[in-house]
Amino acid sequence: MKNLRLILEYRGTRYAGWQKQNNAVTIQGKLEEAIEKITGERPKIYSSSRTDAGVHALGLCVSFKTSTKVPMEKLPLALNSVLPHDIAVVSAAEADMDFHARFSAKGKKYIYKIHSRAARSPIHRGFAWHVPRRLDFEAMQEAAAHFVGKHDFSAFKSTGGSENTSIRTIHSAELIKSGDILELHISGDGFLYNMVRIIAGTLVYVGLGKIEPQEIPDIISSGDRTRAGKTAPPEGLFLSEVYY
Amino acid sequence: MKNLRLILEYRGTRYAGWQKQNNAVTIQGKLEEAIEKITGERPKIYSSSRTDAGVHALGLCVSFKTSTKVPMEKLPLALNSVLPHDIAVVSAAEADMDFHARFSAKGKKYIYKIHSRAARSPIHRGFAWHVPRRLDFEAMQEAAAHFVGKHDFSAFKSTGGSENTSIRTIHSAELIKSGDILELHISGDGFLYNMVRIIAGTLVYVGLGKIEPQEIPDIISSGDRTRAGKTAPPEGLFLSEVYY
Repeated sequence: MKNLRLILEYRGTRYAGWQKQNNAVTIQGKLEEAIEKITGERPKIYSSSRTDAGVHALGLCVSFKTSTKVPMEKLPLALNSVLPHDIAVVSAAEADMDFHARFSAKGKKYIYKIHSRAARSPIHRGFAWHVPRRLDFEAMQEAAAHFVGKHDFSAFKSTGGSENTSIRTIHSAELIKSGDILELHISGDGFLYNMVRIIAGTLVYVGLGKIEPQEIPDIISSGDRTRAGKTAPPEGLFLSEVYY
Repeated sequence: MKNLRLILEYRGTRYAGWQKQNNAVTIQGKLEEAIEKITGERPKIYSSSRTDAGVHALGLCVSFKTSTKVPMEKLPLALNSVLPHDIAVVSAAEADMDFHARFSAKGKKYIYKIHSRAARSPIHRGFAWHVPRRLDFEAMQEAAAHFVGKHDFSAFKSTGGSENTSIRTIHSAELIKSGDILELHISGDGFLYNMVRIIAGTLVYVGLGKIEPQEIPDIISSGDRTRAGKTAPPEGLFLSEVYY
């Protein structure tokens, strides 16, 4: 018996999110089917994250115990041969027996993409939030910096999360511009339910002039969800990396 | 009567290329249908480029004459409301009556994307050539620079083009690396049939060590198609911009 750690990349567009559900197609469901086809086993799979419907992953991490004889270096190719085209195993490695994809995680990085242009984009469709307005990039950059640090992020969570505390530490929050695309790169020790999408929605309000950058600290300390921006749509969100 | 100039963005994946054909779905066909729905006219449409099946465009230019009363600033939104989701008009402007999207073009820029990683990528699928091997980026950069200048590019064209001469001037050819993605940015006064895809295929041969960077000038002057690399697949190619 060994404990495996897989890194997954997927397009969330066609799925009802990560977590297995009855009567819905999920990433977890597809991964379990693939693991069973290749190993003959149906182990319990732990995931670093439970992404919502439409959210993408560049480096989600899962762990599970298996007695498969498939060599580690052949496992990604074998699993990718039976996974749908929009899910792939990027790498596989043996981990310590007590490694747990969710509970061992020390931090995560997310990327949120915003496409700011009047016309909709066929290329970025499904991979960025289309905001058909001009956005004040410098103001958004300034606002993003205010999220860094240890704060109670109650104003930036949706109901429905299962977290014990709303205190999180954001290590970095940067806005990067490349043509019409604005990318929020944000990393921290953890994120509340919908937290990155609410931060992205709030930054767009800043970009539109509805919120001033210097109001952010006050909105955070208010703990009042109604003072933050709306929850940005799922298609702009990428779980980028999980730190252990 | 006025002469219009539209900039188009599209995903080429589902189409048999730009040019209208019987019994095949094409970008031109879809654009003509949309123009007819919005203006009631079916004008002759000139295009800067005839992209092949699977090739994408960020800034293809078309021109056509029309007597439509739809205001210019409303035309993109109107056309986008009837175009399929994978084709969009980015902008519309009135041009001089003698402007011709194809014959007035002074140059073009293409981008070719290569994804170099063992595992296939759900995110880049359809938008990059997946090369599951490690590539020597520095050698490829060095090789790319050799394409700049005025040359007879007979060794870098496929049969089937309608060009009178194989002499073209390449203004710049740069390779940019971002994570696992290599992007060739190449601009010139014009390109022969499949020229960018053959250059991309040749650069990958350089990256794999099958061709040395310093062999490129000799391959160009040989005029021998068999000495260049294979034609890279269409999904990595983006017509980026047309210069007038």
